[in-house]
This record gives sequence, structure tokens and C-alpha cells, in this order.
Amino acid sequence: MDRTLQQRARATRRALLEAAASLFAERGYAGTSVNDISTRSGRTSGSVYFHYASKEGVALAVVQDRFATWPDLSARYADETVPPLDRLVALSYDIAHALSGDPVTRAGARLWAERETVNTALPDPFALWTAAATRLLAQARSTGHLAPHVHPARTARTLVRAFFGLCSLTEALEGAATVPDRLTDWWHLTLPSLQPAPLPPTAPGEAPRGA
Amino acid sequence: MDRTLQQRARATRRALLEAAASLFAERGYAGTSVNDISTRSGRTSGSVYFHYASKEGVALAVVQDRFATWPDLSARYADETVPPLDRLVALSYDIAHALSGDPVTRAGARLWAERETVNTALPDPFALWTAAATRLLAQARSTGHLAPHVHPARTARTLVRAFFGLCSLTEALEGAATVPDRLTDWWHLTLPSLQPAPLPPTAPGEAPRGA
Repeated sequence: MDRTLQQRARATRRALLEAAASLFAERGYAGTSVNDISTRSGRTSGSVYFHYASKEGVALAVVQDRFATWPDLSARYADETVPPLDRLVALSYDIAHALSGDPVTRAGARLWAERETVNTALPDPFALWTAAATRLLAQARSTGHLAPHVHPARTARTLVRAFFGLCSLTEALEGAATVPDRLTDWWHLTLPSLQPAPLPPTAPGEAPRGA
Repeated sequence: MDRTLQQRARATRRALLEAAASLFAERGYAGTSVNDISTRSGRTSGSVYFHYASKEGVALAVVQDRFATWPDLSARYADETVPPLDRLVALSYDIAHALSGDPVTRAGARLWAERETVNTALPDPFALWTAAATRLLAQARSTGHLAPHVHPARTARTLVRAFFGLCSLTEALEGAATVPDRLTDWWHLTLPSLQPAPLPPTAPGEAPRGA
């Protein structure tokens, strides 16, 4: 009995969160009311206040939910049969895809961009990406797949910020469909600096590599 | 006589634009009223309407003004005695500095971030940076200072977006004072891919270049 009530409460919380996320992603924080969340979710306004206390509370839950989905993604990127830098690149395409298509991820990014209009402190949504990238770079280092001058934590921080700027400006200026191509351009510029062992010396009579 | 009136009108327009820029940078578009612009500039609200027609009109002028200051900057970066990639790097630090400290540049960036709340189409504020970066990369190519696989326009687009993400996220997460250090981290990752001729083959007995 308790169990059924708990399940129903969880389903309501989730329906409210998803309705709010799609509204925040489309209209922004200021453009979304508790009433809109109620209408889109098919729940009452009272249930928004009951489960999240306020519109700020829902916004906070939406940003935190982005974090909650990370253990799943991380598990996938814990596959140690794949070289760590390959997992890092694959992860970036997955996140770019979520930023373009997943309402909760989109809402999290938009709420963060509009954080000055939200009346509560939002957690840094980049902390988990940075932690995941740091872990992969550290693995690359310990398996000899990282250029020796690359510092995992510092480089992860740089990569995440540049990556996020690239994805969000590309979507704003050219639309979401071009993001994967621009991401490829960016990796072409960035990946060589992460990889160890530059071109080997060319022996006389041998064609130079890359020619 | 006409001349004096024109000068006075120009001074008023400028005072209104600078007052509006500092308010937009601090409080955002929605948080700034025509009345606030009038108060801060010491001009009447009527003069805002007379010179810019509306709050949207002032916002548009602020974003366009960022463009207007570019010919000065570009002139400085037309100094062909300095290698083009060095000028590109120097330019990036100057823009990062303006993004942290110049009210009109800050206002332009914030208005662009909040463009969905502004009731008028704003020009792409990145077009001129991209054009400047493209020109410098093309010069680097024609003077043999660019890696052969680097396409100037495509690479300029990638660099500007990643650069802007890096600066704006760094400022948001760590404050403006850390931006130059993070920019240096980013150039360490990015510049090697732009430079031509990796280390030449080391002949036996010869010291490797860069050692």
C-alpha cells in the first residue's frame, strides 16, 4: 500500500520534472509558470508545490537530474577495452547529442545560462563532465596514451569549457544539425595535442609522413 | 550652429549608449528600463526614445557598437612585421580582456546570451572575430606559418566558438581574474595544431629542435 503510494509519488515527481524541463528548454525560466508546468504534466499546481515547493525548486531538480543520469553514462565509459582518448571523444559526441535533443539536458543548459534570473543557486552543471574527462585523461596517462606534458585535471577543465562553447554557439548560429561536424573540426584541432609520440623521424629516402 | 547641434546629439547618443551598456552588463536586458537608462545617463527618457526609438533600439546599438570598435583593433593586428599566429594569440588576450572589463563588450555578450528576451533580431557578434581570425590564418598560410591541413575559415569558426565558451564559462565559474591563465592553457592545447612543421627529423648527433 505504502509502496503503491511511493510509486505514484515518484511517477508524479518525474512527470512534473519532465514537463518543466521541456518548458524551460523551450521558453526559458522566466517564460514558464507553475501553471504551465501543471497544464503540460496533467497534474495540479498543488502537486508542483507539494513535490518541489516552488518554481525554483523544480529548476534546481532539473539541473540536478542531469547529474543523476551521469552514473549510467559513466558506466558505459568505464569500458577499459577501449582506449581512454577514444572514450573521451565518444563521450563528447554523446553529450553534444543530449544537448541538442534531450529535454532535461537542454533545460539544464538553458537554466544555467539564465541562472541570474533564477532565484536560487544552481549547481555547476559542468563539474561532472570535468570529473569524467579528468578520469579518462588520467587513465590515458597511466596506459601511455597521453602526451607527457598534459595535466589531466587542468586539461579536462579547458576541454569541457571549450567544448560547451563550441556546441552552444554552433547550435545558436547554425542549428543543432551541424553540431557533430563542428565537433569533428574541433577534435581535429585538439586531439593531436593530447596524443603522445609526435611523428617519428623520417629516415632518408622515406616519404615524410602526412605527405 | 548645425555643427554644435550635431556634436551635442552625438554626445547624447554616446552617453545613452554607455549608460545602457553598463546597465545591460550588470542587470541584463529585462532588468533594465528606459527610465534606468535615463537616470544613469543624466538625460531624459524622451531622449532615449528620440535617439533610439525604444529599449530594443538601444540594445541593437550596443551590439552594433562592438563591431564599430573593431576597425581600430584590426588596424593594430594588421602589423605585418609580427607573425600572424602571434597576432592571433595577442588578439585573443585583448578580446578576453574586453569581455572582462569593457562595459560595451560585456553588454554585447550578455545581450547576445539573453537574445531570446530581446524583442528584436541582434546581429551575430562573433562574425567580426571570425573574419579577423580567418584573415590572420590566411596570412599565416601565405607566409608559411600554418600547418598545411588547416583551413583558415573553418578553423577560425572553431577557434572563436571554443574561445568564447572558454572565456565565458571561466568567468562564470571562477571569476574574470582567472581568464588569462585559462586562455593560456587553451592555447597550449590548440596552437600546436596550427603550427607547421612539427619537429624535424633529428639527425644522429644533432640536438633536437626545441630542446
